[in-house]
Amino acid sequence: MTDLTVFFFRHGIAVEREVFEGSDSDRPLTAKGEKKTYQIARRLLDLGIEIELILSSPLVRARQTAEILLEVGVAPDLMISDLLAPSGSLQEWLHWLSHWRQEHEGALMAVGHEPNLSHWTELLICGKALGHIQLKKAGIIGLKVPATDPLGNSQLFWLTPPKFLLNGSGLT
Amino acid sequence: MTDLTVFFFRHGIAVEREVFEGSDSDRPLTAKGEKKTYQIARRLLDLGIEIELILSSPLVRARQTAEILLEVGVAPDLMISDLLAPSGSLQEWLHWLSHWRQEHEGALMAVGHEPNLSHWTELLICGKALGHIQLKKAGIIGLKVPATDPLGNSQLFWLTPPKFLLNGSGLT
Repeated sequence: MTDLTVFFFRHGIAVEREVFEGSDSDRPLTAKGEKKTYQIARRLLDLGIEIELILSSPLVRARQTAEILLEVGVAPDLMISDLLAPSGSLQEWLHWLSHWRQEHEGALMAVGHEPNLSHWTELLICGKALGHIQLKKAGIIGLKVPATDPLGNSQLFWLTPPKFLLNGSGLT
Repeated sequence: MTDLTVFFFRHGIAVEREVFEGSDSDRPLTAKGEKKTYQIARRLLDLGIEIELILSSPLVRARQTAEILLEVGVAPDLMISDLLAPSGSLQEWLHWLSHWRQEHEGALMAVGHEPNLSHWTELLICGKALGHIQLKKAGIIGLKVPATDPLGNSQLFWLTPPKFLLNGSGLT
């Protein structure tokens, strides 16, 4: 079985915790966060990146991000999963992944939160989470994940903040 | 002292070792390698990335890459150093860096070779080199390197193959 291509996508800019009156899980993207997420989604499409499934955290800011990716056409399907909530565990997600990949060969995009996504990346590529990978909001990580022993044996091929992905003139 | 921004830049596509009649250190960029390196250099400029000094391996394919970056205006100065040759050691380069940063605050771009640049990155961010970071030709790594104990304590904020940096339409 070949390595699976997995993208981690951190949700876009959301209303700050301090000023939002509802629960943390309901915080939505700001207008700027929505706009930038649309820009990034269109850029992924332009780059020819093909995704089979978007898996998203159920929190509103992540789900809105995932829905924008779906709407723009980055992937044909979206699934919401607690595995990507801030309380999710890498081991449980890898367990889900080991089943999913048995019937799918395309790439997966996981939309979630920090510090989980950068810690998971460190665990996948070097076996320990040191907090030494910086993943900005609407930033992306690209990994090649082997079928057996993915922890400490995966490959990192991409890590980008949104500002280096958009055209210079497209930055706001 | 704040973290120093360091970019690693792998030389562009060069004439293959098997078909080049001179010594390995003299292998030049191909026409395609030159073209793509120019595209990436202009993109870095467009993104507003400011570099104080380009430090380059003395091998022809790296020096040509660095000269393109200089010509396009990514940085005002270029220095050639054996520290970035394939035989260079991370410890010796870090020793040079510790002196350089005492008199400079800007970012440094180091143009060199694989597997050195990706191994050095792994040593800087997770303390060991496992070969789990993929750096393509004309690809870029961005690091924040602390003044003390940089090994295993640096931050990775960027890793990109050239194809994800150029416009979709600019890819050849």
